[in-house]
Amino acid sequence: MRRAFALAAQGPERGINPRVGCVILSPDGRTLAEGFHRGAGTAHAEVDALSRLAPGAASGATAVVSLEPCNHTGRTGPCAEALIAAGIARVVYTVADPGEASSGGAERLRAAGVEVAGGVLVADGEALLDDWLVAARLGRPVVTVKWASTLDGRAAAADGSSQWITGPEARADVHRERAAADAIIAGIGTVLADDPALTARTPDGRPLPRQPRPVVVGHRPVPDDAAVRRHPLPLTTLPGDDLAAELAGLHREGVRSVFVEGGPALASSIVRAGLADRLLVYLAPALLGGPRTALDALGVTSIDEAIRYRFTEVVPLGADLKITARPEGAR
Amino acid sequence: MRRAFALAAQGPERGINPRVGCVILSPDGRTLAEGFHRGAGTAHAEVDALSRLAPGAASGATAVVSLEPCNHTGRTGPCAEALIAAGIARVVYTVADPGEASSGGAERLRAAGVEVAGGVLVADGEALLDDWLVAARLGRPVVTVKWASTLDGRAAAADGSSQWITGPEARADVHRERAAADAIIAGIGTVLADDPALTARTPDGRPLPRQPRPVVVGHRPVPDDAAVRRHPLPLTTLPGDDLAAELAGLHREGVRSVFVEGGPALASSIVRAGLADRLLVYLAPALLGGPRTALDALGVTSIDEAIRYRFTEVVPLGADLKITARPEGAR
Repeated sequence: MRRAFALAAQGPERGINPRVGCVILSPDGRTLAEGFHRGAGTAHAEVDALSRLAPGAASGATAVVSLEPCNHTGRTGPCAEALIAAGIARVVYTVADPGEASSGGAERLRAAGVEVAGGVLVADGEALLDDWLVAARLGRPVVTVKWASTLDGRAAAADGSSQWITGPEARADVHRERAAADAIIAGIGTVLADDPALTARTPDGRPLPRQPRPVVVGHRPVPDDAAVRRHPLPLTTLPGDDLAAELAGLHREGVRSVFVEGGPALASSIVRAGLADRLLVYLAPALLGGPRTALDALGVTSIDEAIRYRFTEVVPLGADLKITARPEGAR
Repeated sequence: MRRAFALAAQGPERGINPRVGCVILSPDGRTLAEGFHRGAGTAHAEVDALSRLAPGAASGATAVVSLEPCNHTGRTGPCAEALIAAGIARVVYTVADPGEASSGGAERLRAAGVEVAGGVLVADGEALLDDWLVAARLGRPVVTVKWASTLDGRAAAADGSSQWITGPEARADVHRERAAADAIIAGIGTVLADDPALTARTPDGRPLPRQPRPVVVGHRPVPDDAAVRRHPLPLTTLPGDDLAAELAGLHREGVRSVFVEGGPALASSIVRAGLADRLLVYLAPALLGGPRTALDALGVTSIDEAIRYRFTEVVPLGADLKITARPEGAR
């Protein structure tokens, strides 16, 4: 299985499909073939491995796969059927396929008389699949809501100035977090007020190798000369009327993770809709007071309705703190 | 000097005067006498030690004192004169006396031909004197401003409910912090709205052995049936028109440290006046949104005017974080 993980890691980091590896073993434990998935539209790991064998060579063999074989005819045929057709006697996998359309592979294999063992090295399998798996289970991208605020919860001074609340270490970290996300989302209000580039950059302004897709939420149009229109990836605009459904749409396009960067209205809408899987707060040792809070109304009236999270990480970054929180009860 | 520290530690923890110890050594290094200060109105450490010797016995001896000998006639005579009169040849001390009236002892001793060495084990001497020293230098008590808030900086829900934002571990810690302070200050608005006892209690409600003096700030009267009137220590009320002067008044009464507990108006006034020596924020992993922020207006318009601190401690307490910050540049 560890070899299957290593094969999987050669696949693309982003996209609709997960990174999966497969090793075909002879009944006496020799490796007959290896394969991995190279991205949407290409062969799945199992089919990639089987394609390296002569017809009949996999008869009675064991397939070790880093994800439950799919049971779904998409751009490629179902892997369960391919394994059955190849005469595979035994399948070992880690995590069950969470896909609505693609799950059921193990059941199909068992029905065809194949011996099936799931749940092998689950923690490592989940770690390898990472956001893909969580997003597949949620049916939408994993959502990080980020803000920078002072210790009294302000994201800007009374006159709207906010450059810079946090120090260079925190700002560099924000760009690393942006680069790790598949998409970065800002509200149209923030775009009109601050004209952000929504790119991931080094401290001296050069683009990082990996860029998130820019997404702007709101009804007002993005100006033709907005910085976000010069983003290396094409701009997506969403109305924001049904954030859950619109995020699910991004997921169908292969977006596994989104980074919500502001402003307060959008961040509050995401939180209020229960869509924030991770809060990422850069807390500065400063006070501003005044009206410009990092979040605004959340529809909470009484303390009993407080939206509860748990702190999962607190890291000092220069003079600031990077605080991560996740919903109570979530992973 | 370490023996002088040990003697000093036997003195009272609170009060107008610091804890000071003194050891009188013969020219060949034998201990001739020891003394310490037992509280306002009693002998200072040097005089206490000298009183244990026959007249003339200290002639040519060395006095090791944990604070610069005073040069001030208060309820007792100046120690510098007593040491000179006893024929002390050499004085060794740690920290210079920061008192406006009492400083100058070293100078007086040198003028009389006594050999004087200050600055011995300064860090330990300062640690021993603690809040007394800082308060003496400031001419007012050391001020801690405490609040409990959610990660978005709210101290209450929209309807005013705030019990409980933080968990039992954080609440128990607040009571330990209250007990460590000489006085606890609340605004009259908070007293009228929440009727706090302003006592330091165990989790099951029993009073801790050490209680802070209760102080209420504001013009409106404290009701006769207010819980704070049942406090074991007498209630002090302050108008709050000149917080710096009123705090200096408390200092003259022996209050070295105050704990400012709310509400937002009082905390903001203290911060705005530059009187917050320590921010103590209990941060809960929850969001509330809405209008009830832990601090309100601070007179800050632009980000350049942000009131900057530095984080000095971050400690997890149950599900919450205890965050301590001090003014930039302060100790």
